[in-house]
Order: sequence, then structure tokens, then C-alpha cells
Amino acid sequence: MLGSMLENVRKSCPLVHNITNYVTVNDCANIILACGASPIMADDEAEAAEITSICGGLNINIGTLNSHTIPSMFIAGKKANELGHPVLLDPVGAGASKLRTETAWKLLEEVRFTCIRGNISEIKTLASGSGTTKGVDADAADKVTEENLDKVAAFVKEFAKKTGAVIAVTGAIDIVADGEKAYCIRNGHPMMSSITGTGCQLSAMTTAFITANPEHPLEAVAAAVCTMGYAGELAHERVTDKDGNSSYRNYIIDAVYNMTPDMLMKGAKYEVR
Amino acid sequence: MLGSMLENVRKSCPLVHNITNYVTVNDCANIILACGASPIMADDEAEAAEITSICGGLNINIGTLNSHTIPSMFIAGKKANELGHPVLLDPVGAGASKLRTETAWKLLEEVRFTCIRGNISEIKTLASGSGTTKGVDADAADKVTEENLDKVAAFVKEFAKKTGAVIAVTGAIDIVADGEKAYCIRNGHPMMSSITGTGCQLSAMTTAFITANPEHPLEAVAAAVCTMGYAGELAHERVTDKDGNSSYRNYIIDAVYNMTPDMLMKGAKYEVR
Amino acid sequence: MLGSMLENVRKSCPLVHNITNYVTVNDCANIILACGASPIMADDEAEAAEITSICGGLNINIGTLNSHTIPSMFIAGKKANELGHPVLLDPVGAGASKLRTETAWKLLEEVRFTCIRGNISEIKTLASGSGTTKGVDADAADKVTEENLDKVAAFVKEFAKKTGAVIAVTGAIDIVADGEKAYCIRNGHPMMSSITGTGCQLSAMTTAFITANPEHPLEAVAAAVCTMGYAGELAHERVTDKDGNSSYRNYIIDAVYNMTPDMLMKGAKYEVR
Repeated sequence: MLGSMLENVRKSCPLVHNITNYVTVNDCANIILACGASPIMADDEAEAAEITSICGGLNINIGTLNSHTIPSMFIAGKKANELGHPVLLDPVGAGASKLRTETAWKLLEEVRFTCIRGNISEIKTLASGSGTTKGVDADAADKVTEENLDKVAAFVKEFAKKTGAVIAVTGAIDIVADGEKAYCIRNGHPMMSSITGTGCQLSAMTTAFITANPEHPLEAVAAAVCTMGYAGELAHERVTDKDGNSSYRNYIIDAVYNMTPDMLMKGAKYEVR
Repeated sequence: MLGSMLENVRKSCPLVHNITNYVTVNDCANIILACGASPIMADDEAEAAEITSICGGLNINIGTLNSHTIPSMFIAGKKANELGHPVLLDPVGAGASKLRTETAWKLLEEVRFTCIRGNISEIKTLASGSGTTKGVDADAADKVTEENLDKVAAFVKEFAKKTGAVIAVTGAIDIVADGEKAYCIRNGHPMMSSITGTGCQLSAMTTAFITANPEHPLEAVAAAVCTMGYAGELAHERVTDKDGNSSYRNYIIDAVYNMTPDMLMKGAKYEVR
Repeated sequence: MLGSMLENVRKSCPLVHNITNYVTVNDCANIILACGASPIMADDEAEAAEITSICGGLNINIGTLNSHTIPSMFIAGKKANELGHPVLLDPVGAGASKLRTETAWKLLEEVRFTCIRGNISEIKTLASGSGTTKGVDADAADKVTEENLDKVAAFVKEFAKKTGAVIAVTGAIDIVADGEKAYCIRNGHPMMSSITGTGCQLSAMTTAFITANPEHPLEAVAAAVCTMGYAGELAHERVTDKDGNSSYRNYIIDAVYNMTPDMLMKGAKYEVR
């Protein structure tokens, strides 16, 4: 099943509209290309709706939100809803400032999301207004472990039910859930956290997956999360003792480029709870 | 002839002012350095004219245009015209939104360009208001092939005559033409289209070439296009079965860095029609 | 001593707020992670002070300053001063436009900096309003050589005394000084100047060092400068005849990732004057 999700991206080559941050935007564009889709970035109010219209899906990432791009997020999000296009929210740093938290909350109110992807602290902030985000990284206190996995999965399902979105909480263990089912995913490598924007890249790629698989959002998101994590594992096998986070970043995108549906099916490590 | 165009870049080290998009800006800066020139990025109205004045040439790329950078494009373009500096336009996504199409048209009216570089759909949009841009990639229906090459070359020459600019239409076959002569260039590799911003990078590098060779704009543009395409070929020879688009991106810029006039003369594949 | 500066970054993992340019922002984020700290980028007025408050240090880089980010620089700078957080200024291109020069001067008036890092032309512009910046690179006329080293070191000490900041003038020979002591550092490799943003990266990493070592700003800056230069040397040993500036960029960040306090102590080349 997960393999066919990737296959559909490569077959349909969806065009993905990204309103995203300028820190990781180049990596987001390259990973969208690596998985077989095509990116366009456009964040001015004057063209946001029009660009959304010619695309198949929309990725909203608040990583460097500002007074000029925030209105474009709402315009594009509503247009995508109107057209029935999949929309993803990456609430980068929600909890770290009022502007981020409140913008994310308002987006949740006014736009229907197909998927919301963040770390556990960001998702907790969205769900409850608590969470203890430390900058753009998850707080240690919020960490998902084998011990609290069932409890967190239940929380994620609940939030999925409430929002109608597939929720992807990523970290050492990833949880991807709709209101009924939760994929607990154990792909990935700890070194991925030493690269800026692996989360943003995953969100961009996930948007391509949900756009190419409109009938199966849960499996599409799970497939994207497994693809990223397994790419991180394969890429890590190439890391020599002179390599560091910069080369590793390239190797991960390379591994996505070379991922086949068959490889993904064999490499994906998950159970459904 | 093409070799000396590159040689002149390395000898004169021109400073190039870029008003460009934030997706590929880092690669644009690095490829300008790779070919021997020096980049500066500045897009605020308050300094656009002044930065243009201390530079030798200007690269205007509308890839993530917005209400604050558009006025700077006009200010810098007019200042460059006033000073007799070469100016290049990369009409990224012209045809994909009114904002892009109309900004590009207005730039053509108010600024005299030395070179306009785009894919065939973007150039058709500029020339005729038709074209069928799909996001930032050329549409299949517009594709340049051996069969329609003479017809497209005639169209490109006509548009060059009308605008007074050297026109570079890049794709599987590249056409670089002024009103009289068209270089049909067959360098490059299909994998280049899996990297974000090879077009933007080429535009940035081309600006360095026309700045260093003010007396020979047609040959300067042809040399830049051959340099990029041949670098794409050389870089592809390094690609291992673990490498993908991210490593390939680095290898192309590396190949430009290592390109000599002699290599370029031997590797350039073109005929003049 | 310098080794422990790096060790303290790795131990305390400081969160660094960056208001920086979009050209090199991704490399800045990755090098901050490479040295063991954590980056956050946020430049909207509505969140600048709040993000500064949750961070340990602030990096202000004027590389693509604009009318919306300039106010955020002042707001964040003043908040950091109020909280006693270390603040670094990278006056990219000061001298190249009135906007840059005057913004840098005004920042110096209204914000107390722990460190100011630039090339010799930028620092001369800050100190005296003269300097002959050519774009974002130092002018040849300003170059630091063995002959003028004592004279330049005296000038740098003087400026450090005047501003109360540690001044880092980087180039072929680096000078890091407070009012009393000047480290003259001879790490680095000439090929580093063919990469965009090694200066920006150093500023970002230096902010992490001064944040992790609040009691020893001079040694912290000297350690960051040695780390960058020595990483440039180690990275250059990996450069093959096919590699160019793009791969070299990755290798430098990789080398920072792999740098240990012990390696740094052995590799640092400096004398104190």
C-alpha cells in the first residue's frame, strides 16, 4: 500500500504550491523534485489564489511568517479548500511566539487541512495551547517514548478527529493518525536532527504525497513519513568519518530521489495501533 | 570565441547585482562565484539604484516577486540602462499568474534588456500573451524538437529583433539568438530538470558573462549556456548510483568552477542557423 | 582555552536568534547546528522581541536588509541588551550603500554589541565612514598584510575600545581584538573566498560561541574564528580535482560538525599582540 503511494507521486507529477520559510526553501523544492513532483513558491497576496488554482496541492509552513505572507496563507488556503485541493500545515515554532501560535490557531479555524505535520510540542500547542516549544525543536518534556506511546497516539487520534486532518507528529518515533488509526513509525536516524529543515522537507514532500493520493490521505502521509525516515537511514550508511550534517543533508535528498516503491515497502518500519 | 567569453569573466571579475528569488538565491550566488564573478543581492527600494551603480551588471529574476521587490526591479533596471550596464531578465513563471505576466510585460516596456532567458513557455508568454506555462516548467505542448527547431529559431530571432535583446530559450535544445543569428545548443543532461533552479543559476551566470563581454552579447550568452550545459554533462559523469539531484546540484556548480576556456571550446556543441 | 570555548557550545546547546539575509541563511542554520547550537530565524516586528527572549543570543546580519526587517533588528537588539544576552553585528556591505552604512551606524548607536564581525572594509566604514567596500568583498586597498598588521591591530583595538565590543576583522589574516589584546589568526584557505557566505556562517557560529561563553567574549570569538578557518583547511584536504566551491561549502560545514576541542587546540594558529 505505502509503495503505491510513492508510485502515484512519480506517475502523476503533482504541482505543489508552497508558502514556506526562506531558511529551508531550497531543500523543500529539491525534495519535492526528488520524490517526483514539481514545486512552485509564491507568497504575494496578489498571486496566491491564482497560483494555488494551477497547482494540485498546497503546503503552508509558518517558519518565517511575516505580515506580508500571513494574508497569503489564508487566501491560498481558502482557495485550495474551495477547489478541493489537499492542504498541509507545518506550524513551525508554534508555541515559541504569540504570532506563531495565534496564526496557526487562526489558520485551523479558517482553513480545512488535509494534514498537519509538526513535532510533538508544536502539535500540543495547536491542540491545547500548552506545549513547551523551545524555539523550533521539540521540548524534552514532550518527548514520545515507548512508555507514553499509546497515550500520545490516543491524543493524536483525538486531535485528528477534532480537526478532520491527518496528524503527523514526527520525532524519534513518528505517529501518523486519523481519527481511527495510528501508524507508529520507527524509521529515521538521530543524526537527522542535526540538519536544519528535515521537518520542513518532510512537510513539502508530504504535500506531494497527499496531492497524488487524494483518496488515501492517511496512507499517503504514512508513506511520506516512512520515505523520509528510510531515506535518512540509507543516507546515513553513506556518511564517512569526514562527512557531517551538510553532506548528510544532500545524501537524504539523494536517497529520496533513488527510492523505489519496492524499496519503500521493504524498508518501512511501522505498526498500526 | 566562446572560450574567450569565459576567460573575460575570470579576468575582469565583474560584480553582479541580483534581484532574485529566495528559493535558489544561494545557488545563484555560488555559481556566479564559480564562473569567476562576484555577486551582490539587494532588493530594497532604498538601495536598489545605488547597488546597481557600484555593480557592472544586473540580473532581474521574478521567481518570488512581491509588492516590495517589484518596484526595486524597475528602479534598478532604469538605473542600469542610464549607466549603460547590461541587464538580464529571467521571467520565471510568466504565464502562471497575472502578477508575473504583467510584471514581465511592464519590465519589457520600461527597461531595455541585454538578454532575456527563460523556458519556451515563458518566452512565448512574453512575446504573445499566449504560452501555456505549467507552474515554473515549460509545457510539453511548447517543447522545442528537431522538427520545429527552424520554426522556433525564427520566432526567437523575431522576438530578439522586437526587443533588441539577446533571447535565450533553454530546454533540451537551447536557442540563443539576436535578430540575425541563432545558436542551437545541444549541451546539457536530462537530469538537470530534476534540480530546482538550474534556469535561475544560468541566468545569474549569464549576467556575469554579458557584463564581462559588453561588445559581444550574443556570444557571451551562448558561451554561458554552453558552460552550464557542458557542466551538467561533466557533473553527470560523477553521479554514482547513490547520488541524486542534491549531489548533482553541487557537482554542476563544481564543474563550472573547474571549467577552463579550453574545456569549454572542446565541449560546446552547437550550430549557428 | 580555545578548545573549552567549543566544548561549552556543545555542552550548553544555546538557542541563537538570527535576523539574517536570505542568501546564506540555510548555511548559517546548518553551521550553527554543526557546532552544537540550535538556530531560529525570525524577522517580523510582531515576534522579534519575543523570539529574542526565548533565545540565548542574537545574530544581526544586514546582508539583505529591508524596510521590514530593519525595525526588527532594533527591537531584537534592544531586547537582547535589556536581557543581557550577547549580540553580534555582521555589517554586510557597509559602505556599499547609504542604507547599509547608515543602518549599521544607527545600530551601533542604539544597540550594545558583544561582537562585530566583518571584513576590513566594512569595519573601516563602521569606524570612520571611509573604507572602500566593493560590494560585499573587502577592497584590495584595505587588505591586511604582514607589513601593516601591527597598524591594523592597533586600529582594531581602538575601535573595540570605542564600541565596547570584541571586533573580528576576517580575511587572509584575521584579527580578533578587544581594547587590550589582539589575536592574529592565520587559519583558513584562500578557496574559502570562492564560497558565498563564509563570513555570514562565521558570524552565525560566533554568536553561538559568545552565547555559550558569556564570561570570555574575546576568547569565544577567537575560538569561533579559528574553528572556521581550521575547518576550511581540513575541508580543503578533501577537495578532489572534480570538486569546486559547492562541494567545498559542504565539506567546511562537515568539518565544523566533526571538530573536537582537542583538534581545535592543535589546529589553531595564532599569536596575541
